[in-house]
Amino acid sequence: MYYINEKEYKCSVAVTLDVFNDRWKLAIIWYLLEKDKRFKELSEDIHEITQKTLTIKLKELEEKNIISRQAFLEIPPRVVYALTPIGKALRPILEEMYLWGKNYVKEHGTIGEMTACEASVVKKCLKL
Amino acid sequence: MYYINEKEYKCSVAVTLDVFNDRWKLAIIWYLLEKDKRFKELSEDIHEITQKTLTIKLKELEEKNIISRQAFLEIPPRVVYALTPIGKALRPILEEMYLWGKNYVKEHGTIGEMTACEASVVKKCLKL
Repeated sequence: MYYINEKEYKCSVAVTLDVFNDRWKLAIIWYLLEKDKRFKELSEDIHEITQKTLTIKLKELEEKNIISRQAFLEIPPRVVYALTPIGKALRPILEEMYLWGKNYVKEHGTIGEMTACEASVVKKCLKL
Repeated sequence: MYYINEKEYKCSVAVTLDVFNDRWKLAIIWYLLEKDKRFKELSEDIHEITQKTLTIKLKELEEKNIISRQAFLEIPPRVVYALTPIGKALRPILEEMYLWGKNYVKEHGTIGEMTACEASVVKKCLKL
């Protein structure tokens, strides 16, 4: 049995699922696998996300210590988001998910052109 | 870009997330990694699940070709659920999720006794 902040988990797989059970968080994690980024850069990477949602998701990931937020006292102020070591350790899961999804689509769907999003992930984040 | 039944995905990771974005489906998949099972066995493995929910989740996984359902014309009738080859290929993802979750709890939570659920998964399903 596992306990995190009074929440109970029967299995450690459920702990992991809790971290990226929504696609926004997953997207943030993988764009940060590429490199540390500012809010504006993440907002451009995940262009469908609203500023409000991005703020909420970043906050949630920070509370779980998956990402860190560093504010530099410059003018204009600069805030940089980065994966923590445990956040970076999510890479193998994303790589396996990427490969499985690709095989699944080969069998059960249609593959169109590679999107800029995916090309970026494969080249810079997943290192496949 | 990926298309499955008219649904559009920007990245193959999102395809994978769509398969096990709820913990019931994830639980069904990993208990089937152990061996093919009857409805009753799955119902005992995942003892918090209602019969109605289990029926719905099995149906959804069957529609996605993650599991297969074989009915034997015996008396009483026997129905066996098994992972398809692409379903079995989810194993590495679950293994990585298991390991990451365990490390995360070591840093950010408390580990209690290993539940029967987890012991079973680790021994029989994940082959760790």
